[in-house]
Amino acid sequence: MAVFPDDSVGLVSPRTLHVSEPLRLSSGAVLPEFDLVYETYGHLNEHHSNAILVCHALSGSHHVAGYYPGDKKPGWWENLIGPGKTINTDRFFVVGCNNLGSCFGSTGPNSINPATGRPFGPEFPMVTVRDWVESQTHLATALGIERWAAVIGGSLGGMQVLQWAIDYPDRIAHAVIIAAAPKLTAQNIAFNEVARQAILTDPDFHGGRFYEHNTEPRRGLRLARMLGHITYLSGDILHQKFGRDLREGKINFDYGVEFEIESYLRYQADSFAGRFDANTYLLMTKALDYFDPAAATDGNLTAALSPARASFLVLSFTSDWRFAPARSREIVKALHDNRLRVSYAEIRDHHGHDTFLMRIPLYLEVLEAYLERVFQDST
Amino acid sequence: MAVFPDDSVGLVSPRTLHVSEPLRLSSGAVLPEFDLVYETYGHLNEHHSNAILVCHALSGSHHVAGYYPGDKKPGWWENLIGPGKTINTDRFFVVGCNNLGSCFGSTGPNSINPATGRPFGPEFPMVTVRDWVESQTHLATALGIERWAAVIGGSLGGMQVLQWAIDYPDRIAHAVIIAAAPKLTAQNIAFNEVARQAILTDPDFHGGRFYEHNTEPRRGLRLARMLGHITYLSGDILHQKFGRDLREGKINFDYGVEFEIESYLRYQADSFAGRFDANTYLLMTKALDYFDPAAATDGNLTAALSPARASFLVLSFTSDWRFAPARSREIVKALHDNRLRVSYAEIRDHHGHDTFLMRIPLYLEVLEAYLERVFQDST
Repeated sequence: MAVFPDDSVGLVSPRTLHVSEPLRLSSGAVLPEFDLVYETYGHLNEHHSNAILVCHALSGSHHVAGYYPGDKKPGWWENLIGPGKTINTDRFFVVGCNNLGSCFGSTGPNSINPATGRPFGPEFPMVTVRDWVESQTHLATALGIERWAAVIGGSLGGMQVLQWAIDYPDRIAHAVIIAAAPKLTAQNIAFNEVARQAILTDPDFHGGRFYEHNTEPRRGLRLARMLGHITYLSGDILHQKFGRDLREGKINFDYGVEFEIESYLRYQADSFAGRFDANTYLLMTKALDYFDPAAATDGNLTAALSPARASFLVLSFTSDWRFAPARSREIVKALHDNRLRVSYAEIRDHHGHDTFLMRIPLYLEVLEAYLERVFQDST
Repeated sequence: MAVFPDDSVGLVSPRTLHVSEPLRLSSGAVLPEFDLVYETYGHLNEHHSNAILVCHALSGSHHVAGYYPGDKKPGWWENLIGPGKTINTDRFFVVGCNNLGSCFGSTGPNSINPATGRPFGPEFPMVTVRDWVESQTHLATALGIERWAAVIGGSLGGMQVLQWAIDYPDRIAHAVIIAAAPKLTAQNIAFNEVARQAILTDPDFHGGRFYEHNTEPRRGLRLARMLGHITYLSGDILHQKFGRDLREGKINFDYGVEFEIESYLRYQADSFAGRFDANTYLLMTKALDYFDPAAATDGNLTAALSPARASFLVLSFTSDWRFAPARSREIVKALHDNRLRVSYAEIRDHHGHDTFLMRIPLYLEVLEAYLERVFQDST
């Protein structure tokens, strides 16, 4: 039997919540019913007051921590979650939920559309951050959670946290928003658009109906992921890890792998294209582009956040050029304007946007200190 | 008859130099003979001492200034070159030369290989910045130019200037290096690699033999160009020009153009894919990746620049995140170490890398002041 580290939640298994109520989406489309796949770690206390929802980013899933049987790699936030860890499962009941439109079990483009008997593909409607929050309230209710002790997320996950605070102020005590932004910039959208064009113009995309052609737009997904990786990491860390190192110690004057950075990108691309769904990639980038809670208040983020009642921790990383600290400070300012309790830390680190996934001591200490408060509030 | 602005060189036409001597390239390959297409503006003085070579960047050409019959758009550096302009054709004899491997007339992948009677395609050898300088010496000699009053270039063009100063110290009086770098970073290479993968994996690429299939890897070229544009412009200018403006004033929840930035990128991509050669794109990005004059001196740029004798002007732009000012300062330091005459200016501007193509007053003033010195030296 496999032995897991003491600070891991160990073997885990996903569960499915079937929601048979229709969900009206931001686009106006309606999902008559849907599944949400989720995992939980730790125990829900008597008063159901110690539950933490972890929201995932573009390529994440409900598999946040622990191991599936036979797996060598644990969930995507294993670095932070487990017994005695930063998000301490001895104290908290932690919930990971796969977003609607994703490809890891919750209803999405690769699910069978009950109305047609074939995969949704391009018929799957666009989903927004608000739609995800809406769907997640069903999970909260099903689990008997009136109010989350905290909702936590990084990147696109952090945007869901912000939306929770706006849409359900009574159901979220603490909001932890990491490496996020109140909306994308033109440059952010531009990178997403290149990724989408790579997928949409791949001849194997077949207008999103590639499942039925028994193929997938692998080339497009590969390019999207390579590009993504460049923006998730800082120039500094790429320099430190790869520099101009040559794979074979010399230039070959051909289009094979010459520089180590090329090898890294191709490896990441191949691995991703084997496990991710192209339609989901498109949907996730669109949800990112659309996210702009202040759009409804003429661009006034302070006004948009006025319904919020939670206490906030906002974290950013100095080397994150995708969602730079200045973007987090926009959120902090709007929270301050609303006289909400907000803690903010700008963590000095050189890894870039992906720092939120890593074991960076200062980062974990700040988060742990804040969660101590969340714990005190929850007991 | 078309009327051109007074400060334009007006109607121009390209000429071709055929070099029948073999050219041994950095890769070891040999081009038995080759053509260089070039243009000249202004008049060579009696002592042949007022000639300026303009080196082009990735997608540029010999068509640096003036108009072809019927054309609405002038050469790519019309902003700077003409009678009375910054690079004053009343004073200087200005030469634009299309690089080997390009697709605008000089021998390249889309030229007919005399050995086979069909386009070179993938048989065209890799070329380096050093190879370009070597080929350009043939043009200098053919034009009767022993020594350039100045060699000037931006971006990849600036790299050629630096190489001229190292390889032919007696043939270059002044070197003007704009928005360049002494070598690419891992991040720079990474962006190039995504562009290359987009082209190489396009089913219409046919291993570089697309000419014979009567097609071209348009999808790949489009993606490469979109990505390029993002890195050529600053986040600030994208924000200023496009922000999150919606094409139709509302979100449509589909994959058509929604944001103005998407429209801009698609337009740029379509226009580029219609006029550029995919094999050339690959070659140019490789020449960028390979450029590293200090590689031969164990990474010591000061040692690499020790043969140089020219006077230098180095210019960078504060908002250029592709080749940031710090990269220009590396060059300046190494020139200083060699006790060479060097002027350096960091131009405060928000347009990004492409600033070198624009009419930014401070930029033009600094360049013009320096060229006054070049002119004094040349008379």
